[in-house]
Amino acid sequence: MNKPSFESDYNNGAHPEVLRHLMDTNGESSQSYGYDEWSESARVKIRQACECPDADVFFFAGGTQANATVIDALLRPYQAVIAVETAHINVHESGAVEASGHKVIALASHEGRMWASDLDNYLLRFFADPTWEHMAVPGMVYVTMPTEQGTIYKKEEIDAIYTVCHEHGLALYIDGARLGYGLMAEECDISLPWLANHSDAFYIGGTKMGALCGEAVVFPKGAPKGFFTHVKAHGALLAKSRVAGVQFDALFTNELYFRIANHALLMAKRLRVIFEEAGFVLKDSPTNQQFVVLGNDMVERLMQQVLFETWEPIDECHTLCRFVTSWATTEADLEALRVALTRL
Amino acid sequence: MNKPSFESDYNNGAHPEVLRHLMDTNGESSQSYGYDEWSESARVKIRQACECPDADVFFFAGGTQANATVIDALLRPYQAVIAVETAHINVHESGAVEASGHKVIALASHEGRMWASDLDNYLLRFFADPTWEHMAVPGMVYVTMPTEQGTIYKKEEIDAIYTVCHEHGLALYIDGARLGYGLMAEECDISLPWLANHSDAFYIGGTKMGALCGEAVVFPKGAPKGFFTHVKAHGALLAKSRVAGVQFDALFTNELYFRIANHALLMAKRLRVIFEEAGFVLKDSPTNQQFVVLGNDMVERLMQQVLFETWEPIDECHTLCRFVTSWATTEADLEALRVALTRL
Amino acid sequence: MNKPSFESDYNNGAHPEVLRHLMDTNGESSQSYGYDEWSESARVKIRQACECPDADVFFFAGGTQANATVIDALLRPYQAVIAVETAHINVHESGAVEASGHKVIALASHEGRMWASDLDNYLLRFFADPTWEHMAVPGMVYVTMPTEQGTIYKKEEIDAIYTVCHEHGLALYIDGARLGYGLMAEECDISLPWLANHSDAFYIGGTKMGALCGEAVVFPKGAPKGFFTHVKAHGALLAKSRVAGVQFDALFTNELYFRIANHALLMAKRLRVIFEEAGFVLKDSPTNQQFVVLGNDMVERLMQQVLFETWEPIDECHTLCRFVTSWATTEADLEALRVALTRL
Amino acid sequence: MNKPSFESDYNNGAHPEVLRHLMDTNGESSQSYGYDEWSESARVKIRQACECPDADVFFFAGGTQANATVIDALLRPYQAVIAVETAHINVHESGAVEASGHKVIALASHEGRMWASDLDNYLLRFFADPTWEHMAVPGMVYVTMPTEQGTIYKKEEIDAIYTVCHEHGLALYIDGARLGYGLMAEECDISLPWLANHSDAFYIGGTKMGALCGEAVVFPKGAPKGFFTHVKAHGALLAKSRVAGVQFDALFTNELYFRIANHALLMAKRLRVIFEEAGFVLKDSPTNQQFVVLGNDMVERLMQQVLFETWEPIDECHTLCRFVTSWATTEADLEALRVALTRL
Repeated sequence: MNKPSFESDYNNGAHPEVLRHLMDTNGESSQSYGYDEWSESARVKIRQACECPDADVFFFAGGTQANATVIDALLRPYQAVIAVETAHINVHESGAVEASGHKVIALASHEGRMWASDLDNYLLRFFADPTWEHMAVPGMVYVTMPTEQGTIYKKEEIDAIYTVCHEHGLALYIDGARLGYGLMAEECDISLPWLANHSDAFYIGGTKMGALCGEAVVFPKGAPKGFFTHVKAHGALLAKSRVAGVQFDALFTNELYFRIANHALLMAKRLRVIFEEAGFVLKDSPTNQQFVVLGNDMVERLMQQVLFETWEPIDECHTLCRFVTSWATTEADLEALRVALTRL
Repeated sequence: MNKPSFESDYNNGAHPEVLRHLMDTNGESSQSYGYDEWSESARVKIRQACECPDADVFFFAGGTQANATVIDALLRPYQAVIAVETAHINVHESGAVEASGHKVIALASHEGRMWASDLDNYLLRFFADPTWEHMAVPGMVYVTMPTEQGTIYKKEEIDAIYTVCHEHGLALYIDGARLGYGLMAEECDISLPWLANHSDAFYIGGTKMGALCGEAVVFPKGAPKGFFTHVKAHGALLAKSRVAGVQFDALFTNELYFRIANHALLMAKRLRVIFEEAGFVLKDSPTNQQFVVLGNDMVERLMQQVLFETWEPIDECHTLCRFVTSWATTEADLEALRVALTRL
Repeated sequence: MNKPSFESDYNNGAHPEVLRHLMDTNGESSQSYGYDEWSESARVKIRQACECPDADVFFFAGGTQANATVIDALLRPYQAVIAVETAHINVHESGAVEASGHKVIALASHEGRMWASDLDNYLLRFFADPTWEHMAVPGMVYVTMPTEQGTIYKKEEIDAIYTVCHEHGLALYIDGARLGYGLMAEECDISLPWLANHSDAFYIGGTKMGALCGEAVVFPKGAPKGFFTHVKAHGALLAKSRVAGVQFDALFTNELYFRIANHALLMAKRLRVIFEEAGFVLKDSPTNQQFVVLGNDMVERLMQQVLFETWEPIDECHTLCRFVTSWATTEADLEALRVALTRL
Repeated sequence: MNKPSFESDYNNGAHPEVLRHLMDTNGESSQSYGYDEWSESARVKIRQACECPDADVFFFAGGTQANATVIDALLRPYQAVIAVETAHINVHESGAVEASGHKVIALASHEGRMWASDLDNYLLRFFADPTWEHMAVPGMVYVTMPTEQGTIYKKEEIDAIYTVCHEHGLALYIDGARLGYGLMAEECDISLPWLANHSDAFYIGGTKMGALCGEAVVFPKGAPKGFFTHVKAHGALLAKSRVAGVQFDALFTNELYFRIANHALLMAKRLRVIFEEAGFVLKDSPTNQQFVVLGNDMVERLMQQVLFETWEPIDECHTLCRFVTSWATTEADLEALRVALTRL
């Protein structure tokens, strides 16, 4: 039997309702390249969930691909994207944004978040610099919600960033690889329609939210001209597009997407309690990624009972470790963790 | 009820054995990014099928992505890839190869095939041209097997191309989006191990061979250094890699990949007979894509009974039409076609 | 002493008036990056010569650089440029256009020229193809004036191309590496102002027209937004911009640019007569590049007396050879050629 | 009459000996694309100056172009270049490195210098990170000598960086836009041969050292395969290559390059004294760029007498200003500065 795993939210299969929809539709033939009926149905449901009837919606197989393709579509060749230092595009995408020709300008990370004031300062200084035309010109801003560190943005924070963007003519793009876990977090005051109203593009992550693969890119005010061909030129157009369409059709039926989020958040909350009751210190995170400080000797021993990821060294004796919940996390997994902690 | 569809081999779902494996493995947790157990198992099986124990195998979500990523990895920035005019990378990939910086040099197409003599002539003339250093330098050759027009290469043809490649220091890469249909064609004398022994890279197509998505790129002599990161920089690394791994694990279990090919080829053969008996002219094609000349008025009427694709105009009154079979094609589909033709 | 050379129009130094202006201005200090007074003065004179007061003018060090930079600025990433097969960008620029991500679509060459009817046919077929969104989308047209083969366009030809471009929403860009030789050719009915009025961008070649280096890109209706930074991102911005500015300032003073063209054209005309009187066959060319058929044995012997370039084999015994005149061609050079031909 | 200018070392014309060589050679015809006799002669002289008989030498029109082309040639597509934050490629090249697909990884700047210990730490941490294959992989290091801030490296510093590079398999490339001013600085212990022996590529700047344009890229152990075509694919090959060849031939005749450096350094030293005697504070800089703190009111008044550049604000009332000397700086210029300072 497998050890209980808190390694990631993409180390399990598809949510049963997603899998069932794949099975139920498997026998039917369909159009391809996004013209299949389930992709269309999923688009309709996503537009409804966003209260954004004119939105364009495109499905991608993965997040790095979605990011690089969207960013390249929103920028001119000499333009750069601004992100925080810890942003996924700046660290863990192997330079995919640069590979399509664009500089990533890194601002300070505040527990994964960008501050509107930092952005504003940067842009004011940039355009005040008499040599600015000799530098890669900021053309858009990239933020993640929730962030790579499990934190979330509040309405007023996104609003402030969006306002700064518009003052300087920049587009705002939101990477929502784990969007549901952010939107459903207790302290979150942002809804999908509000987000659609305060950004130029964002993606609703599927891979980490119960799908086998798939991310839905939403352009609330319409996609850039020629985006279909642009997607294909980035190698990102799915031939058998139903694989993403069917899954998103399931995710946006009966609010499955949000039910998955809620389950994972509940599990995360209990996981916090288990650690706290055992006397451990956790970083503040309202989402499905929880960060716990463990002694190095304990890391190894605990790893024999349950799976998780070491995140970064704290000091010579301690390591920050990441525990992630998902639709697949069970009460039994938590109990196994509790027991394992008790034994240690 | 759906009309019988001969539109493509990617307008149906997954082969039931593939789907079953997805279901059976869904509950297990796994590593990601290609390190899951099914990707590893599939790699082992593919190496065995290729009789190529040292091969590196990487899974991609789609063919354009695989092509652009592999080609960019095998070339230096100033180098070009040679293909025939009708090659998929030269026509229907939206300039994805050029988007990563490389020229596609187009040779004449002989029913979709490249001739080794054309290649040799081109290269001899190229390097004899005193200005060759001012031109994009050929660094590799791309062929498709079977071709975009349903034809296949014989051993001696690939062998001759491979020999020319090596004489000029070029790599040979084979796009096998429909590889199985080619290898199992009656008149084909090429096997997977032979192919692995006569190319530098090729891919075993899954999307058009019974998978929901997925192509397996094989480097018989090992992948270029850093290929993992290169794949990610192209936005092509699957996080939940099991989605491809599980499917290829199924495809290479009990020779499913070849059984799928055989079924489709049998259906294609019967489809030929149906058309021939009804007095229609077909282009010579030994694979699962069949090309039939239809009168324009007939195209419309037949389309009301069964689905297929118009390929290109023949003259003012006739159109070349494509009928494709797959694992999903049934005797009933063929019978419906026969009846429809009789009625017309 | 050097042999008389008809090898190229870029194997000599600068025209004496250009050199003098470099000497006369050498002691003065100036701004850089295009803000020096001579660049500004040259821009004013070029705008006047084009009768185009709102034109934006940028100076580049070379033609390949100008082409790649302008083309990348006028296209979106997924778009392609259409040119004839023999176009410089399609042959002798080492894939520089593809290196910045864009496919070159090659139409038939009619002695170096594009036919508007070919262009129109291509575009009509392209956009009628139901799969066009899967192909690199034509975004602009590139022609050379005069062409790589010494031929020129007439007003009605450019006009027809420009009209087709506009009907399909494409930009027209004209590579004028040898523009002066074309405009001043006897049979040419195109003027600089007319050209500015019938294209979206073009460049006035300096390197082959008496400068040490430098090409002036003209956008009659203004440059794309951010073009300054775009130029620098292509590595094409000259720090000591006076090097180009001073030279173009000289070229557009007292019509030097056109006087250089006229001199070279006169020399070319006499060169034609010398060859014709000696019984040789020349290709029709109204510009400073003359193409003569020589027996292979003669090529070698003549090369001992005067320098020229072999262009391409005609048959086993004959070679097409190129003789080019420039500002530096003298009567003595021609006389030496005449004597050499007589001796043979 | 022009105001004395200390704005930059590229706001003047060519050194008279460079100009004279251009004049003297102007009448001769030559090969092109680097095959002219002066380019060859310059290469021989540069190899001698570097005591590096097997070096490959290529001439470029400008520094950004040289940097982007060399970096793209030394890296694989997924690799990154490491530089300090203030590095020219990271700030003032408009993202040209990213435009050819590569990330710039920025380390802390120590007055413009990279510390070998920072580099080593970065690389050790990088390759110890279990996720390193998901990040752009460092493939080379870029340093400037002298730095953008006028400082220089000592032997032991470059040696340490070069050692770290080799331990991790990285190439070392040195941007020598102002190389001569660095090498001839009093406190510099590095010679050209030593540099050639402790780097994989570097460039000898001409534009800022007395040429109208031109940078000489040196590969001490030979250029990457296909570099000629690579240069052209970057739009960086000069057709009339003599423009760079003649100038470098002059610069490396009778040690002109070093005499120019010495003159500018002498002028810089006197300029320091003038400022110090007038009670101003200068940053420590042993090269031809001097950085002085001026009160904001004084900036404006002094600017009316002599030209210079404001570099960056120090506080609300003070600005760091840059004064640059070159071959063109005269005693009279310095005297004018002295008088102007006295008057203020």
